[in-house]
Amino acid sequence: MTTQEDILDDPNFRPVLNHGFVGILDTMGSDKAVADAARCSYQAGTKTIQDDEALIRYLKRQAHTSPFEMAEIKFLVRAPVFCFRQWQRHRCASINEESARYSIMRNEFFMPERDTIKPQAIDNKQGRAGGLQEQHIDATLWTMETANRSSYDMYRIMLNEYGNAENENRRDTPYDLYADDMFGDSENNGTFPGIARELARTVLPVSMYSTMVWKIDLHNLMHFLKLRLDPHAQYEIRVYAEAMYELVKERFPICMKAFEDYQLHSKNFSRMETELLKTLLKDRVTDIDQVLESDHGLSKREITEFKQKIGSA
Amino acid sequence: MTTQEDILDDPNFRPVLNHGFVGILDTMGSDKAVADAARCSYQAGTKTIQDDEALIRYLKRQAHTSPFEMAEIKFLVRAPVFCFRQWQRHRCASINEESARYSIMRNEFFMPERDTIKPQAIDNKQGRAGGLQEQHIDATLWTMETANRSSYDMYRIMLNEYGNAENENRRDTPYDLYADDMFGDSENNGTFPGIARELARTVLPVSMYSTMVWKIDLHNLMHFLKLRLDPHAQYEIRVYAEAMYELVKERFPICMKAFEDYQLHSKNFSRMETELLKTLLKDRVTDIDQVLESDHGLSKREITEFKQKIGSA
Amino acid sequence: MTTQEDILDDPNFRPVLNHGFVGILDTMGSDKAVADAARCSYQAGTKTIQDDEALIRYLKRQAHTSPFEMAEIKFLVRAPVFCFRQWQRHRCASINEESARYSIMRNEFFMPERDTIKPQAIDNKQGRAGGLQEQHIDATLWTMETANRSSYDMYRIMLNEYGNAENENRRDTPYDLYADDMFGDSENNGTFPGIARELARTVLPVSMYSTMVWKIDLHNLMHFLKLRLDPHAQYEIRVYAEAMYELVKERFPICMKAFEDYQLHSKNFSRMETELLKTLLKDRVTDIDQVLESDHGLSKREITEFKQKIGSA
Amino acid sequence: MTTQEDILDDPNFRPVLNHGFVGILDTMGSDKAVADAARCSYQAGTKTIQDDEALIRYLKRQAHTSPFEMAEIKFLVRAPVFCFRQWQRHRCASINEESARYSIMRNEFFMPERDTIKPQAIDNKQGRAGGLQEQHIDATLWTMETANRSSYDMYRIMLNEYGNAENENRRDTPYDLYADDMFGDSENNGTFPGIARELARTVLPVSMYSTMVWKIDLHNLMHFLKLRLDPHAQYEIRVYAEAMYELVKERFPICMKAFEDYQLHSKNFSRMETELLKTLLKDRVTDIDQVLESDHGLSKREITEFKQKIGSA
Repeated sequence: MTTQEDILDDPNFRPVLNHGFVGILDTMGSDKAVADAARCSYQAGTKTIQDDEALIRYLKRQAHTSPFEMAEIKFLVRAPVFCFRQWQRHRCASINEESARYSIMRNEFFMPERDTIKPQAIDNKQGRAGGLQEQHIDATLWTMETANRSSYDMYRIMLNEYGNAENENRRDTPYDLYADDMFGDSENNGTFPGIARELARTVLPVSMYSTMVWKIDLHNLMHFLKLRLDPHAQYEIRVYAEAMYELVKERFPICMKAFEDYQLHSKNFSRMETELLKTLLKDRVTDIDQVLESDHGLSKREITEFKQKIGSA
Repeated sequence: MTTQEDILDDPNFRPVLNHGFVGILDTMGSDKAVADAARCSYQAGTKTIQDDEALIRYLKRQAHTSPFEMAEIKFLVRAPVFCFRQWQRHRCASINEESARYSIMRNEFFMPERDTIKPQAIDNKQGRAGGLQEQHIDATLWTMETANRSSYDMYRIMLNEYGNAENENRRDTPYDLYADDMFGDSENNGTFPGIARELARTVLPVSMYSTMVWKIDLHNLMHFLKLRLDPHAQYEIRVYAEAMYELVKERFPICMKAFEDYQLHSKNFSRMETELLKTLLKDRVTDIDQVLESDHGLSKREITEFKQKIGSA
Repeated sequence: MTTQEDILDDPNFRPVLNHGFVGILDTMGSDKAVADAARCSYQAGTKTIQDDEALIRYLKRQAHTSPFEMAEIKFLVRAPVFCFRQWQRHRCASINEESARYSIMRNEFFMPERDTIKPQAIDNKQGRAGGLQEQHIDATLWTMETANRSSYDMYRIMLNEYGNAENENRRDTPYDLYADDMFGDSENNGTFPGIARELARTVLPVSMYSTMVWKIDLHNLMHFLKLRLDPHAQYEIRVYAEAMYELVKERFPICMKAFEDYQLHSKNFSRMETELLKTLLKDRVTDIDQVLESDHGLSKREITEFKQKIGSA
Repeated sequence: MTTQEDILDDPNFRPVLNHGFVGILDTMGSDKAVADAARCSYQAGTKTIQDDEALIRYLKRQAHTSPFEMAEIKFLVRAPVFCFRQWQRHRCASINEESARYSIMRNEFFMPERDTIKPQAIDNKQGRAGGLQEQHIDATLWTMETANRSSYDMYRIMLNEYGNAENENRRDTPYDLYADDMFGDSENNGTFPGIARELARTVLPVSMYSTMVWKIDLHNLMHFLKLRLDPHAQYEIRVYAEAMYELVKERFPICMKAFEDYQLHSKNFSRMETELLKTLLKDRVTDIDQVLESDHGLSKREITEFKQKIGSA
């Protein structure tokens, strides 16, 4: 299972970008297993929290992380190298990635979708924002494709997998002629055996796709998702995170709902901001109680905690 | 499932020491999954090694560790605190341990088997060796039991779970009288509510049993087993390692056989020792070839590697 | 440097509890080194943030953690075993702890201060709260001291470091007589060599003091401090965290101020709570602007971020 | 300090490859600090091993790793991305790497030295071996340089840092004309603002140089060096490992000598190989004793251990 086509009918997989995918190979544990691990810590102390959901939401709210380490997910991922470079900075995970020292890399490179090609953002030093004229998008795509193709052509020339005029991948470009001339078999040249794969691959761009098995526990996955679902994450890794999020949610629905409420969509207020909130909400006890009468999804205990945070309890 | 009795009929569990046990709650992966993860790295490069066993043995021989991280094992363990103190030094694992701040600890303490009670070893600063007279073993056991029981009595007195004369655990010892006198309800004393569990437990000895869920990947487990199966490891943790070894071997037979051959029973020879071996085996090519004709369990490739190591190839 | 007395005059150390201490043995890096590491990531991108303080506060606010890993602190700690059990759950740290298999433990045990001895908290399953009558505090202290002393007496008896009537540590308690009788040299008994240290120590309570070198990077230390300075952390480890906090603040003043403002005293509001805040602060734009005119310690950018969080921007 | 030229006169740095370097920014600890950390574990138990060197060699021989974690080294590294991809698989380290999302990458790409350009090895699936004709080396270098330059040209065109005819980097190549035509300012085109850096960089090859601060403890560095100094490691990362090895050896001479003797140049013999050795050396006691009379660098204790390993003691 190694190309985007291979995985299209597998419900455990999702296609991502032009040649990529992500899918779940295996999982260990479940919502119940997370709750049970927590029960080991609290023993008799958990009597009052009987159901899994209440316990899991309590754990997530209190940032008790160890029970979430007790679930594990193993993914198979195909993504561009520049995504893997960001991905593999998450160190609490296990990796087996295909090696360009052993194998010849396939001719698959990242090409952006038209509507994701944008200028550098002004206010966000690492992002993109705004629009481009259609002809500039055309020119960008042409440039990228040319760059990728040229790199791959040169890669294959150096591996001596290209010189043959009958080669089905051969195109009548300057590189073909060049390859014939400089690397082709001839009386002057002798036979070119190709250079080592580990050297030839150095000309391949970071848009090249690679494949890895990636295994991580649920706690560390949540951290990964928090960072990579963030609007400031690069779009091309965000789409992987979104696909993974959906896949994991099917298997750990209670944990992932708690993740959404207490981690993904939570906001951290600094000491100064918390002080501001207290000032703003002082003398608003009536308002607060009124709002709390409506539906808000907070448990009794969370209401108390909320009031403490904003200084009205 | 929390006492030694509870697990006696469960084939996934083994009783260890006087009140302990270790068992497998869940596993992820298999021999095949380890081999498949390696295949992701090598892609086409693994064509020549086709079967799982040959591939796994190759990985282990070459100390390629990442595929073994792709299998995961979750244990439930009950062991004395002094064992957990050694156990939890292994940091690449996930832990949920029962908390003596939340729960009242049970009256279960480690008592050694008679034939494991020995004097301090002379040549091994951290071990035990030699024999003791029977009456000294008796005296040791009596001392330990008295120490454990006294500590637990005082623990329960401080929790105010002991003063009641009808208490089934009550014995007519000085502590009972003392408890009645100093902590018992009376006109002078008022009612003693007990002190907090987190404080009372400080008098409990490290022989006290505790329980944890412990999850680790197969690579890190092998490292744990290498260290804890070693004859220099403390006997009381070694017996846990032995039970775990057996349990894991049933589930990962090929990986664990490779572990035995290339890690557990392998020997590391220093630079100087390797030089010595070369000197000793120089001019013994005939002997070597003769020995290699007999059954020795080495593959062709291993024979070449062996000869290289001892300088005869 | 191994007892509380030894460190009293050393400005890098603080005494903690009745026999413990914590001190800094060595540090790597500084506020400037943290900022410089971040500059490596951003290169030309950091031009607009020129000074270290603004950069460090930005990093902490955005939860960019890797630059804080570039500073390292090595502590020497003496603390009760029950503290070490909590402490060593933090896995991203290096440890060398004294071993009770090698050495004879000293007669130093944790005894609480009078005003920290309290009943179990009603609403906090793991804490203590409320008061006790003076005679119950007396009785608790007497019980603890007796428990610790008895355990240590039995430890020394089993090591055969006690039987000698001339021993300066000998007291005329039942244990002395018992030791003479059961373990003492005599025609019937022969000479008792003592049992191995690794076995004898099992009767020692978790109130026993131990010593460790503990090395951690600044990012992981901040996480440790966030958890262990929390009012829900056990008092006895909190006092260590407080001493460490002070010591580290002297060496990394800018980082630790940012830690206070954006991590230690920040508050996390769940998705539901954030919605509530938005509802409560809707139509309060005038109030907000008014409050923001006063001194509040927020930068211009933080004001914008604050308004975005509460939906008024 | 960011180019190879900048570091040439700094004794803490070494130039590596055509544009790279590695140097030490800071260290924590020393040989003595490693020994002292071990002494904390053994306390009185270390009395018999008094000097640092004997203790450190003992630790390394016994694979006691934690004291080596107590030393820390912070490097600044400039290397090609394909090296960083191997480098960063070592997860027990801290990283701050320059980001191609923030900054424009410099025009520096890896080009191999002539004598390192070789065909794919026959017997080593991941290596190179053998020779090439001079004209094939010329052709390879020309191909690589062309590939790198083209990629960088296209990168700059897409960033709109290239179209200007006065640009000093401009060359009269087809790309210049192309850039003028498709991206240049004109009535038809309007002004091209350039695309975002995070997108444009996807065409850059893995031969591109990047810079990182890399911090690791001495134990994990030794593991890194063991793997990356191995003849099977890719040449281009091996030269970094060699430079680091030299630099670290100056600062931790005793630790690194022990590393050489007991880790780097040691050999692991499998269970089967050890059995073979025993068979081969049986009845050679006289030979062994004779060899041991000569100078071999083994301590008395190591001689005993050696004899045990080969079954002659």
